[in-house]
Amino acid sequence: MGTVDTVTPLSPTPRSTVRRGAKRARTDRAELHAVLDAGLVGHLGVVLDGAPVVLPTGYGRRGDTLYVHGSTGAASLRAAAAGGPVCFTVTLVDGVVYARSAFHHSMNYRCAVVHGLARPVTDPGELLLGLEALTEHLAPGSWTATRQPDRRELAATALLALDLTEASVKVRTGPPADDERDLPGGVWAGVLPLRTEAGEPEPCPQLPPGTAVPDRVRYRGVTRSS
Amino acid sequence: MGTVDTVTPLSPTPRSTVRRGAKRARTDRAELHAVLDAGLVGHLGVVLDGAPVVLPTGYGRRGDTLYVHGSTGAASLRAAAAGGPVCFTVTLVDGVVYARSAFHHSMNYRCAVVHGLARPVTDPGELLLGLEALTEHLAPGSWTATRQPDRRELAATALLALDLTEASVKVRTGPPADDERDLPGGVWAGVLPLRTEAGEPEPCPQLPPGTAVPDRVRYRGVTRSS
Repeated sequence: MGTVDTVTPLSPTPRSTVRRGAKRARTDRAELHAVLDAGLVGHLGVVLDGAPVVLPTGYGRRGDTLYVHGSTGAASLRAAAAGGPVCFTVTLVDGVVYARSAFHHSMNYRCAVVHGLARPVTDPGELLLGLEALTEHLAPGSWTATRQPDRRELAATALLALDLTEASVKVRTGPPADDERDLPGGVWAGVLPLRTEAGEPEPCPQLPPGTAVPDRVRYRGVTRSS
Repeated sequence: MGTVDTVTPLSPTPRSTVRRGAKRARTDRAELHAVLDAGLVGHLGVVLDGAPVVLPTGYGRRGDTLYVHGSTGAASLRAAAAGGPVCFTVTLVDGVVYARSAFHHSMNYRCAVVHGLARPVTDPGELLLGLEALTEHLAPGSWTATRQPDRRELAATALLALDLTEASVKVRTGPPADDERDLPGGVWAGVLPLRTEAGEPEPCPQLPPGTAVPDRVRYRGVTRSS
């Protein structure tokens, strides 16, 4: 029982092949894109002096290239990420799975894990396209509605590109997977669904009173955080 | 402008000292606890064959010890994490910051980063306490309301302990930090607050019809995901 789903490698390399919970793997590239597009932040892992460093960062996608905002991390992180191996993970938590035993408590979620070598973006054209992807991912409509980066800002921006070649998606949905022995106990079991909701937009105090909230903010499709 | 906050090391080691955005650092240990307690999943980073691996996992806290559910990752991850250096990061996304320029778009968030050596929990007493912390973090009230782990389940559980000694907290709140030159443009700016909401509990199909949803589920304080 339990519509327990999958982890699937989208590439056959050992580290992106999910060994545990293989039922939860998804192989479809469209599903990888869907999870990445639905997230808001990801967690970028790099190795620094032999130890892992994991920091949250915004991102954007263009086809099978992921752009990560290098400047959201420390300078040391940027240095490590420029050309070194990275792991970028986006997780969407969809619900708390209440089981009849503590052991079978779980979460429903969608998770995309990308491995690869980060490539610093230096070409001015790609830098602009990458920043557009990043901005539009965070705030759809903002790239054209606000002032675009000038030369000084572009120079201050560290953007990393990551190929979506080596990636896996893991998904869990559905009710708990309880033991048969626990079914008769009368303990409630099921799923408490979770979703990210937007509240009322809070205008900047320096905005002239009465400035209308634009549709791109008011009706923003709320992506899921993590 | 921008009530831009802080990143603060809770310990003075180089890697937990936030170099960038030091205004956003927080030094208070209570704030570290608060961020960890408010999260639902964290991202555990380990080094595997020289490359970082970042996977989401549930966790629980007891004082200044964090317990992480080792079995949520691949066997290779468990192996790497047992005694090796790890980084555990919890991020709560509080809002999308809309600025008057693409460059100043941002997110409001709270983020806790913990560095350390993962210690596999083998003592039966600590294993139970750690699993209780983990279960109660995910599903408050479930530890006593559901069947607790038996010997077989305990044997199948890999639990890692991580000291909260070397940690930092980074927080951003408030409106965008726009350039003076962009203020007169008439572009809307502000914050779209985001929060995690629980939906209607979905009973397990194998539950006898009419089984009441317990208060621990119905009125669960919704923690924030990431």
